[in-house]
Amino acid sequence: MISVDEARSKILETLLPVGEEIVSLSAAYGRVLAKNVVARVTQPPADVSAMDGFALRAVDAVAGARLRLIGEAPAGHPFTGTVGPGEAVRLFTGSVVPGGADTVLIQENGVFADGWLTVTEAAGASRHIRPAGQDFAAGDVLLTKGRRLSPRDIGLAAAGNHPWLAVHRRPRIAILATGDEICLPGEAIGAGGVVSSNAHALAAMVAEAGADSTILPIAGDSLAAMAQAAEATRGADMLVTTGGVSVGAHDHVQAGLEAQGMALKFWKIAMRPGKPLMFGRLGEMPVLGLPGNPVSAFVCALLFLRPALDVLAGLPGTAPVLAQAVLGAALPANDSREDFVRAMLSSEGVVTPFPKQDSGMLKTLARAEALIRRAPFDPARRAGDVVEILRLGP
Amino acid sequence: MISVDEARSKILETLLPVGEEIVSLSAAYGRVLAKNVVARVTQPPADVSAMDGFALRAVDAVAGARLRLIGEAPAGHPFTGTVGPGEAVRLFTGSVVPGGADTVLIQENGVFADGWLTVTEAAGASRHIRPAGQDFAAGDVLLTKGRRLSPRDIGLAAAGNHPWLAVHRRPRIAILATGDEICLPGEAIGAGGVVSSNAHALAAMVAEAGADSTILPIAGDSLAAMAQAAEATRGADMLVTTGGVSVGAHDHVQAGLEAQGMALKFWKIAMRPGKPLMFGRLGEMPVLGLPGNPVSAFVCALLFLRPALDVLAGLPGTAPVLAQAVLGAALPANDSREDFVRAMLSSEGVVTPFPKQDSGMLKTLARAEALIRRAPFDPARRAGDVVEILRLGP
Repeated sequence: MISVDEARSKILETLLPVGEEIVSLSAAYGRVLAKNVVARVTQPPADVSAMDGFALRAVDAVAGARLRLIGEAPAGHPFTGTVGPGEAVRLFTGSVVPGGADTVLIQENGVFADGWLTVTEAAGASRHIRPAGQDFAAGDVLLTKGRRLSPRDIGLAAAGNHPWLAVHRRPRIAILATGDEICLPGEAIGAGGVVSSNAHALAAMVAEAGADSTILPIAGDSLAAMAQAAEATRGADMLVTTGGVSVGAHDHVQAGLEAQGMALKFWKIAMRPGKPLMFGRLGEMPVLGLPGNPVSAFVCALLFLRPALDVLAGLPGTAPVLAQAVLGAALPANDSREDFVRAMLSSEGVVTPFPKQDSGMLKTLARAEALIRRAPFDPARRAGDVVEILRLGP
Repeated sequence: MISVDEARSKILETLLPVGEEIVSLSAAYGRVLAKNVVARVTQPPADVSAMDGFALRAVDAVAGARLRLIGEAPAGHPFTGTVGPGEAVRLFTGSVVPGGADTVLIQENGVFADGWLTVTEAAGASRHIRPAGQDFAAGDVLLTKGRRLSPRDIGLAAAGNHPWLAVHRRPRIAILATGDEICLPGEAIGAGGVVSSNAHALAAMVAEAGADSTILPIAGDSLAAMAQAAEATRGADMLVTTGGVSVGAHDHVQAGLEAQGMALKFWKIAMRPGKPLMFGRLGEMPVLGLPGNPVSAFVCALLFLRPALDVLAGLPGTAPVLAQAVLGAALPANDSREDFVRAMLSSEGVVTPFPKQDSGMLKTLARAEALIRRAPFDPARRAGDVVEILRLGP
């Protein structure tokens, strides 16, 4: 058995980002940049007014001065002449400041009528002007590759005049639930049968990470079913299986995929929930075998699949971020396995474990707000102790 | 001018959640539940084994006992007989515990050969059995309406045997950028023209909130252009405009929409960036008019549009969550407007404002990691003071 951190390293070190594609700006939110975005324009393109007002020469902007209004320049309609001594041009927010003018008098500080402007309050030089390139200049790197594009980034790429962006394509993840006992939601349930939930939760997690998934038909507990499933994974960047990775006589995932050529890297981790976790490679395709219990499958997916999806997507693959919280109830000493305890988290930062931690209990998992991480051999903890947690949910 | 909180209340109090639709489980991740999800099955459906091992009677589970193996029951293939005295049935994780048996001996604690099992370590009663309904029983409420569905929720709905879910449909937001000076990314840029960025950033923010957007053609600065745009908003749950909401002679958004029948609720807020912010109603459709400056538009969208999108989606509409951080540089006293200062946030929780806060600077906004919120008339602050922040990004 290897540790959680060692397992994550072994998984991540073998993965490479998927290739790139070109997407329109409208489709780029949430995607990971494959190339730097360089400004194609200067912003503002010229000195522009930050306010509604008047362009004039600072020497003329003295209280009581009476200036001839020689034109107006709404945003998008620059004044093509030059502002001379004793002259002014009416401007609006975003208007280009015309040649000859070196300051802007805001409209509250002047009175204009019949083609004349009377200055009521003086303005200094260079007032209310956004100089050309104040935001960025053509050629500036606006966004660097390897960044997941936020709404603000999309705005910046637009302002830099990019209708298309080079991004990593969305990783394609094949998801395979295994087990003779499981069936699809809404379909007939056999004797002793249960409804498949892992594949659907994992597909949602894959979507959350910005990747695409294919849910393969459920594979029964046989080598033949695994051979058929392996065939169906063509074109996937990764195969994720659930169930059948233990040592039981009916656990066929490992043997079934090895029969198809999978090279096994490891299959046991010192953690709870989730000891049986398999990682290997079928041809070029990485294969992550998760346990069948819903809680184990989810926690293992959070610890190993999420960072793997990040690496495939072109991001750094990092361990989930841990925070600190105050324990709301005592915990007994931990054994040799790293433990992830489902818990509620109050807004005051008190984390209270659920009394029952069975790895089959999906309802408890869905309600959990945090996992308490316990190192191997962590001693008994009392209420009030500070512990490490992994926040769940938004 | 009204305060930020008053403006948000005035906006949110007029909004209603959009209607519901039925989506398949595979399409339900991130959607907001419109009806409770009630378990249609019991999970586990029967007492099942939590381990690979043997079902037997606890009275027989004593070290040295030799039991006759009368069958095996892989998961999904229950044993239909009954376990009598001196008998055992081989089980696997998830197997139904057959009638007559009341405990499970894990396989490590027995030796089996030639149809006989020798107990090597005693087991008490009810060991390694997950009782029927331990996770949930048919009829239990698994997920309550008004909840945005997480990957774990999707798993739980699947386990509850729901192939379809009733959710709120995605709100449809029409986005209208206005201004004679702006043009679409990649298209010809006129004299003094700038590339439109707000509409694209807002569309990404709308997507982030789980809503759909329609970016309308850019409206020039004229009443006729606003009339045409108003016509194009049919079917939208909300119209969001950018630019043209100030008092300038070329700000036609308010007048143009009022000419089409818009009832104005307010149009000025005591905040920076973003004083000119308009809210009204065109027929049934709420209209939010954001400023044209990219930073103002984004900050106003964060404070007003995001909670509005939540309400439309069926969630509670709440103010953005503020956190605390230590100021990394001094700030002068604030004036009468609530201020949102772009800043970097270190991993140690030190928040340092950018020296330049011009509301046209989109590059600074994209790099910002937090906004420092300053109340009206907040006194001067020194480095080391604790301030309120709004985290940006992931």
